[in-house]
Amino acid sequence: MTCAVLSIGTELTRGELVNTNASWISSGLTELGFEVIEQCVVDDDKARIVAALERLARGAKIIVCTGGLGPTTDDLTTVAVASALGVGLERDEASLDHIRRRFEKLGRTMSESNGKQADFPVGATVLPNPLGTAPGFKVEVRGAHAFFMPGVPREMKRMFDDEIVPRIRDLAPNDSHQVRFRTFGLPESVVGEKLDGIEAAFAGVTLGYRAHFPEIEVKVLARGPDRASAVDLAERASAEVRNRLGDVIYGNGDDTFAGVVGRALRTRGWTLAIAESCTGGLVGHLLTKEPGASDYLLLDAVTYANSAKQAVLGVDEDALRGHGAVSAEVATRMADGARRVSGADVALAITGIAGPTGGTETKPVGLVYIAVACPKGTVVKQQVFPGERHWIQTLAAYAGLSMVRAACKNT
Amino acid sequence: MTCAVLSIGTELTRGELVNTNASWISSGLTELGFEVIEQCVVDDDKARIVAALERLARGAKIIVCTGGLGPTTDDLTTVAVASALGVGLERDEASLDHIRRRFEKLGRTMSESNGKQADFPVGATVLPNPLGTAPGFKVEVRGAHAFFMPGVPREMKRMFDDEIVPRIRDLAPNDSHQVRFRTFGLPESVVGEKLDGIEAAFAGVTLGYRAHFPEIEVKVLARGPDRASAVDLAERASAEVRNRLGDVIYGNGDDTFAGVVGRALRTRGWTLAIAESCTGGLVGHLLTKEPGASDYLLLDAVTYANSAKQAVLGVDEDALRGHGAVSAEVATRMADGARRVSGADVALAITGIAGPTGGTETKPVGLVYIAVACPKGTVVKQQVFPGERHWIQTLAAYAGLSMVRAACKNT
Repeated sequence: MTCAVLSIGTELTRGELVNTNASWISSGLTELGFEVIEQCVVDDDKARIVAALERLARGAKIIVCTGGLGPTTDDLTTVAVASALGVGLERDEASLDHIRRRFEKLGRTMSESNGKQADFPVGATVLPNPLGTAPGFKVEVRGAHAFFMPGVPREMKRMFDDEIVPRIRDLAPNDSHQVRFRTFGLPESVVGEKLDGIEAAFAGVTLGYRAHFPEIEVKVLARGPDRASAVDLAERASAEVRNRLGDVIYGNGDDTFAGVVGRALRTRGWTLAIAESCTGGLVGHLLTKEPGASDYLLLDAVTYANSAKQAVLGVDEDALRGHGAVSAEVATRMADGARRVSGADVALAITGIAGPTGGTETKPVGLVYIAVACPKGTVVKQQVFPGERHWIQTLAAYAGLSMVRAACKNT
Repeated sequence: MTCAVLSIGTELTRGELVNTNASWISSGLTELGFEVIEQCVVDDDKARIVAALERLARGAKIIVCTGGLGPTTDDLTTVAVASALGVGLERDEASLDHIRRRFEKLGRTMSESNGKQADFPVGATVLPNPLGTAPGFKVEVRGAHAFFMPGVPREMKRMFDDEIVPRIRDLAPNDSHQVRFRTFGLPESVVGEKLDGIEAAFAGVTLGYRAHFPEIEVKVLARGPDRASAVDLAERASAEVRNRLGDVIYGNGDDTFAGVVGRALRTRGWTLAIAESCTGGLVGHLLTKEPGASDYLLLDAVTYANSAKQAVLGVDEDALRGHGAVSAEVATRMADGARRVSGADVALAITGIAGPTGGTETKPVGLVYIAVACPKGTVVKQQVFPGERHWIQTLAAYAGLSMVRAACKNT
């Protein structure tokens, strides 16, 4: 069953506000099993609200709307709905009472304009708002169920969960299942090519891709005659996806790359030390964004200056002078130093040129050395990453974390 | 002149992604003086893309579209546009070359499917994409200028600024001017209250707010009979905004908080060392995201374990044992230690409990100690931040940077 989301407000069309309501509602509808075919945002213009509503009702069976229910003159949703339905407004005394009581609770007197929030199109079902003044309502527009809520996210979410979900849950087709994979290491185009033909081989399966630099998420959505067939189909197609992508898949669903690396360290029973230069703390930040990093992380020494590389990690001046701070030799000494100073089992060091300045002919922007020191010895890798500063930093951090993960597995 | 924004992608209609592109583009169009009358989001469905495009072209003179230009089978924008125009596709050799060179630069071979990204509707103007593989394009749909860009925000923003703005700037009514302020330290509702009445006092001025945690951007948009009056009006209203918000404003336009702190250090001629615990590298990451941090940053010692606080910063065991790692005493010793080890002029230390676990009755989750050591001495501050792990880390990092900035000014 198809749904649409309509958001009303000039603050949205002017780009003053990011429309988090639409994605939140869409996600909720998708989770219930509905297909959301459109999100529409219009400004506070009565004619455009009416037109959007009439149009969406032709394609969708459920329309969830937010915004324009406030007390001010630019709040036009209710009159627009009444106009679309060709009915008048009537005041709901229970709602008026609710609004008045809310104001009294706050020690204020209800103003004339707030009375407007108790007016609804004739025939509408009022949806109570326990967290704010403006109640919502439900009407039928050309056979579609149309729900109207205030735009305040907190009030809207509560009303959606309490008043809308129970009214629409049984209308959702229970015939789809989705599996999500998280990948790192290949560009979107190559991931897509590797999975070429899967949609043809498994009828009813749709593959989706989402690039969230530097990761690509792969989604396997299966629809079948019923839920059990959809689950079975999704699982068969997912086995093929796993088979084709192999190690490029690092996790499922809501896994994060740093979380997976942390898990590998925990499984191996290893503590970690980091020595960063060009990544400036990003590796530590990625690992400590996740709760529980204190299980394994002892130290992240961001030794930005050469003097700090010497003072904290004991990198000798000869190495810095002879090879330069961006060199395999210095990366190795940084990793060894971080391991020694912290007493960690494994240490990762990254030194490079993130740009935009600082590159030379022999050492261009993007050149990065990554070293991993573990009980078995120290390995160092040279890479040249493309793009701007932020890309180089992110790719270097991910490459470093990859090497730590590999060390946990292989040693 | 009216505009519409069309975003294409099932990841959007399924609510997997918040549509930040639409608000960014709408904000840009509004700033240029255009009126955005609709944002529309459709899934990766050819018929629905065609229908949306044809419909929007009836109401808007400029349509800015993003998404669906990737190399995979679910990327359907180009074929949909060709179908809406009733034309075929033709391959652009220059674009193919650009894509091939990008791949070569990355040391990879261009795949067959990437060739698809060099196909455009016959008659389209190609818009180069310096930051990614997929070029954009421009066509006329029923007299409306329609621009198509990839959905990757970084590529899209660059293409909008470089390729679209110059093509549409002269079409905008030249009667508005906008001033932007960046603030940190007050919630949006309080910022709004402080500015209450400004719109009434300066007719023609609209205030906009955009929350980008933990910052609030304030936009002062003025419209007048002509550009000069709009500039004058915007400046008078902005003076009042500055007057009311005072120190809460840390910069203008595209300033970043870390950048402003870096500027303060440079102006003071100071070098900086950092010692982080609960923020896990975030402070270093914020400072080094900006180019030029090497001018002042010597060291960021993320001493996550107590052993690292001792080994790297020389925090004595008695302090750790007697007061605990999260204490004013340890924060002070971390700052002093970082300053001593690195030889920096000023040092910032942050230790706290970011949660979700680790809190106690006397030391709850959110408790953070921040110390700044500078030539004049060391100050330490206790704060309790609300919210989840990520909030606590971010608020603590910003509070620490604020203290460094204050030290640069006051010492």
